Amino acid sequence: MTMGHQSAAMLVIGNEILSGRTHELNAHVAAGRLFKRGCRMEEIVIVPDIAARIIKTLNRLREHYDAVITSGGIGPTHDDITMQSVADAFGVPLVEHDGVIDLMTDRYGEQGLTDGRRRMAMVPEGADLVRCEKTIAPGVHLGNVYVLAGVPDIFTSQIEAILADFGGRPFLRREIEVQLPESLFSDELGAIQQRYPAVEIGSYPNRCGGSPCGKICMSGQDAMLLEQAEADVEAMLGRLS
Amino acid sequence: MTMGHQSAAMLVIGNEILSGRTHELNAHVAAGRLFKRGCRMEEIVIVPDIAARIIKTLNRLREHYDAVITSGGIGPTHDDITMQSVADAFGVPLVEHDGVIDLMTDRYGEQGLTDGRRRMAMVPEGADLVRCEKTIAPGVHLGNVYVLAGVPDIFTSQIEAILADFGGRPFLRREIEVQLPESLFSDELGAIQQRYPAVEIGSYPNRCGGSPCGKICMSGQDAMLLEQAEADVEAMLGRLS
Repeated sequence: MTMGHQSAAMLVIGNEILSGRTHELNAHVAAGRLFKRGCRMEEIVIVPDIAARIIKTLNRLREHYDAVITSGGIGPTHDDITMQSVADAFGVPLVEHDGVIDLMTDRYGEQGLTDGRRRMAMVPEGADLVRCEKTIAPGVHLGNVYVLAGVPDIFTSQIEAILADFGGRPFLRREIEVQLPESLFSDELGAIQQRYPAVEIGSYPNRCGGSPCGKICMSGQDAMLLEQAEADVEAMLGRLS
Repeated sequence: MTMGHQSAAMLVIGNEILSGRTHELNAHVAAGRLFKRGCRMEEIVIVPDIAARIIKTLNRLREHYDAVITSGGIGPTHDDITMQSVADAFGVPLVEHDGVIDLMTDRYGEQGLTDGRRRMAMVPEGADLVRCEKTIAPGVHLGNVYVLAGVPDIFTSQIEAILADFGGRPFLRREIEVQLPESLFSDELGAIQQRYPAVEIGSYPNRCGGSPCGKICMSGQDAMLLEQAEADVEAMLGRLS
């Protein structure tokens, strides 16, 4: 692997998520893919289909993180305002992309090139296309921003197409099941975390039929340190059980 | 219904979401509940277990919106730093809450009051408790911020307990199934949206076995306007099909 973006944020655009109509699925997909590449997802933000909000949030995120992935709002309807908003955030015009027009003409013929389809060929000036097998309507890549679709199977296909730009040294994860209440091991677990600053240790409690059942999860890029931390957690749980 | 918060944001705290380990479920629950109450969820932000990030994001959100709901990081382990971060955001100390200590003493006895459990009785000074049936460890309410659990069934139970503070005039939603590609109706749908500014019209495309299958979704607080917009969309689809 070559080394790519080390940190990233995700900007999800869509009223349908904020109204509870649609369950957001893409951020989870992106987070998992980036983790395996060794790129840290630092923030996920969901905003409505309002240009000013998209522009302001995108400009904040692209300044703070190595890369930003957006999801949603790139179709042809009135609520699809992501491409224009990204162009405005970068201060460039939207332009018709010849390559996309060619693809659409091949697929639909000259007469099939409706205004709606033509709108999907408009991209921020200077953007590269992000192509995938699922659709001829492309995502785009401009500066450190990747503008991808909201439809989950298209998003997933597009993110596979850009993954090589991210990370380089994978994060590894270990999990241990725990049947104790957190409050019984919280002090000792905190001490283990202090001994391994390069390993991120989290405790994720849950209930199974009224009894505590959870997981202690460790992640990091150094396999040996991870193994040592895991052994310390196992030993602690052995003493307490 | 009395009128409560008209806008809200949600702040989800947890590395496990950003690493793709855990699928975030609470924001969707909150968004759906607030929609039905007529409170607009304006923004959802997910940040890691880092105090400075929680404090900065919380202070931004609580200034911009009527209310903020947080989820996660209120257990007893080292990665549970939400209560301290909320206290720091408000500039107040964390204090032991007598009522929670009493509840815990009743449940576990004096000897069962471990340091870990005692830590879960620490709340920002001036906060009210958010109680629910699922746990004796409370969420809290301070100013316009509601600090709730990350475990989904506890979160859901806690949000039911605070819903009366939100909204007052429910949003209504209508959906129409569409078997046409968006690009064929995007112009006309945009014109309908312009005629009904008080109705939010969204188009959500999907693919079903290679064919377009999507939904046009309308929402708003005025039932009559919603019905009129729906009739216009039905008439448009009738012409195009």
